[in-house]
Amino acid sequence: MSDHDTHLAALQQGNRRPLAGYAATHFSWQCDAGVATITLNRPERKNPLTFASYAELRDLFGALKHADDVHAVVVTGAGGNFCSGGDVHEIIGPLLQLPAPELLMFTRMTGDLVKAMRGCPQPIVAAVDGVCAGAGAIVAMASDLRLGTARSKTAFLFNRVGLAGCDMGACAILPRLIGQGRASELLYTGRAMKGDEGERWGWFNRLVEPDALLADAQAMARDLVAGPTFANGITKTMLHHEWAMTLEQAIEAEAQAQALCMLTNDFRRAYEAFAAKQTPVFQGN
Amino acid sequence: MSDHDTHLAALQQGNRRPLAGYAATHFSWQCDAGVATITLNRPERKNPLTFASYAELRDLFGALKHADDVHAVVVTGAGGNFCSGGDVHEIIGPLLQLPAPELLMFTRMTGDLVKAMRGCPQPIVAAVDGVCAGAGAIVAMASDLRLGTARSKTAFLFNRVGLAGCDMGACAILPRLIGQGRASELLYTGRAMKGDEGERWGWFNRLVEPDALLADAQAMARDLVAGPTFANGITKTMLHHEWAMTLEQAIEAEAQAQALCMLTNDFRRAYEAFAAKQTPVFQGN
Amino acid sequence: MSDHDTHLAALQQGNRRPLAGYAATHFSWQCDAGVATITLNRPERKNPLTFASYAELRDLFGALKHADDVHAVVVTGAGGNFCSGGDVHEIIGPLLQLPAPELLMFTRMTGDLVKAMRGCPQPIVAAVDGVCAGAGAIVAMASDLRLGTARSKTAFLFNRVGLAGCDMGACAILPRLIGQGRASELLYTGRAMKGDEGERWGWFNRLVEPDALLADAQAMARDLVAGPTFANGITKTMLHHEWAMTLEQAIEAEAQAQALCMLTNDFRRAYEAFAAKQTPVFQGN
Repeated sequence: MSDHDTHLAALQQGNRRPLAGYAATHFSWQCDAGVATITLNRPERKNPLTFASYAELRDLFGALKHADDVHAVVVTGAGGNFCSGGDVHEIIGPLLQLPAPELLMFTRMTGDLVKAMRGCPQPIVAAVDGVCAGAGAIVAMASDLRLGTARSKTAFLFNRVGLAGCDMGACAILPRLIGQGRASELLYTGRAMKGDEGERWGWFNRLVEPDALLADAQAMARDLVAGPTFANGITKTMLHHEWAMTLEQAIEAEAQAQALCMLTNDFRRAYEAFAAKQTPVFQGN
Repeated sequence: MSDHDTHLAALQQGNRRPLAGYAATHFSWQCDAGVATITLNRPERKNPLTFASYAELRDLFGALKHADDVHAVVVTGAGGNFCSGGDVHEIIGPLLQLPAPELLMFTRMTGDLVKAMRGCPQPIVAAVDGVCAGAGAIVAMASDLRLGTARSKTAFLFNRVGLAGCDMGACAILPRLIGQGRASELLYTGRAMKGDEGERWGWFNRLVEPDALLADAQAMARDLVAGPTFANGITKTMLHHEWAMTLEQAIEAEAQAQALCMLTNDFRRAYEAFAAKQTPVFQGN
Repeated sequence: MSDHDTHLAALQQGNRRPLAGYAATHFSWQCDAGVATITLNRPERKNPLTFASYAELRDLFGALKHADDVHAVVVTGAGGNFCSGGDVHEIIGPLLQLPAPELLMFTRMTGDLVKAMRGCPQPIVAAVDGVCAGAGAIVAMASDLRLGTARSKTAFLFNRVGLAGCDMGACAILPRLIGQGRASELLYTGRAMKGDEGERWGWFNRLVEPDALLADAQAMARDLVAGPTFANGITKTMLHHEWAMTLEQAIEAEAQAQALCMLTNDFRRAYEAFAAKQTPVFQGN
């Protein structure tokens, strides 16, 4: 083994931790050809989150940064609903018993889930049917792309439980998705956004039939996985990091990032395929 | 009186200044069960603003920060129009006589009105019919929610009077409401946005019939007042303060803000009402 | 000549460099009464960009900062297409031969084109028909206003050639035009935005018939040129500079900028025309 190969192997050893075969505890995780599907699966309660499932989701999305066998993630819910949010009995009740430092521990944990979803290089596709409420709406919001159904109801219902609309980044992210005025209404009132509103407002990328929802989301994810996944990860990183940059900073940052992508083999593969009148086969490097 | 009660009373004394009974000079102010309604009421001139009404609006919205008897504000205009903007004779003419420092005094005063509208904790609902032009469009823009009519005409007509579109925050706020491209057109051309455009673009939350406009806006405000008003104020604060934060900063800020709201009694009230299968009665603390 | 006139002449000499008569090399440039039209004109290849045309566009838009005989710019393409982006043979092929520093030189050059388009005071109207792809989509994106046709296809197809969507500011600018979710889809997938989508999403200000496209874009530009062009330039500057400001910073910046505009003769001209029931004739000072 050459020095080069030795060094590379050492670098990869510390930074490549496969996750395709991950055994999830609090939801289902299934991975097929680089497309992972997370299914929130307590359908009898419309798939609520608990302290434990929050933590596992946060850790899993955090770990995806090092997983080179997963290139896109679909998030969905079992039984015709996406997610009803934080469980009333398993989260809201207990929170009422906690002092300030522990409450902050909780709100930071939930915020860290959003940070992990925005921080991993894999694009995330939310497949939203039925109820998508509270923290469930946040999980959909923190995804990169959203497919919905006409009957879906997305509610940032924090004010209905006596809280503020500023949960897990909603006051920053939702306005950039649907506009400041529409976001304000949803966050002040907690009222549900209907499927067709979501499509009109830019929340959903597309509405599909409930029966086709998961398959369409997975097909969308497969298309992403067939693309240049290293470059896709850079796209995601830049969408995240340019959030509050000046335009000058953003343009310089993109010049550096794109120059890096021009040194990948995927860029060469696309050119050679074009020259040979073929479809490029990307390999993510 | 205990020490605790003495300290609390002293704190409240300096920070609670009721405004429900405020006697307005340059517009009408009427307050009913926590919902204040400001009516610009010079209908024969389509409710223009003057130096004096600007200053009174700025001071009033600034004072709302300390008013715990007003929980939402409706802004509207008398006689089928919202507001025609700065009066040609009472503002534009005089401005032509002023040197640079006094012009800046004026533009800072108008900007301070927007800052005060964004800085008070009460959500503001603009009820817009007919003409909504110049500074009138800005007042609608600086509100949290907007109800409009099909016949309303909203014009950022600054360039029609020889000025730039950058008035009172318009180049920052309007793009976040309707998108950078549509905002650019309105600000470069001064052309009127029609009611249906406003609804499609996210400027108006909803279009209603002119006859129902004020009642619907007040009903919307009453719904907000029936919610957790302390938390609503935090929602407003965070929508404002996260404007130019990075996502990491926004998520941490929301974790702290929401942990604070979890210590309010309104959060407990919602939980207890849920457990008792009742509707929560929030009290804003 | 008075001292005043001497000083003014010296200042103007260093800062006024007419461009109406500019002789373009890599595209066509034609200027009529303050409205310049840039036509990308290699229709047999759908008007691709080359290293040389990129550099000339960057330099020309950079020089517009000093040109007081051009007050608005229309950008269009010859032969029913806008621009197919960076030429496969003249740009992509050569880039594959370059080391990192030269790649950064290239991506900075392309980024500098966007900076120059946002940095010149003249509003830019893109007239988009047919193919609008890659760097072509970026040129349309970096314009202030966009007219399109129903048959136009705008594709940020960077990921189709193995690159990231973060090209020339796209991850910062596109989300502000059409929303973060729709922008994410276009940048992750490279799929074409159709004309009607573009209108619905705020990308296009209006759709027109292909035959009327250039004339309508030029008419829009003429309207801008008939306005207060100094103030229009300030509008553009503020739309650019307020990108990542807090609202407080933006409102103060606008107070200063608008006070400056209130000292222009165009502001007086508008007032006097209004008083005389005439249409103001602006002169850009």
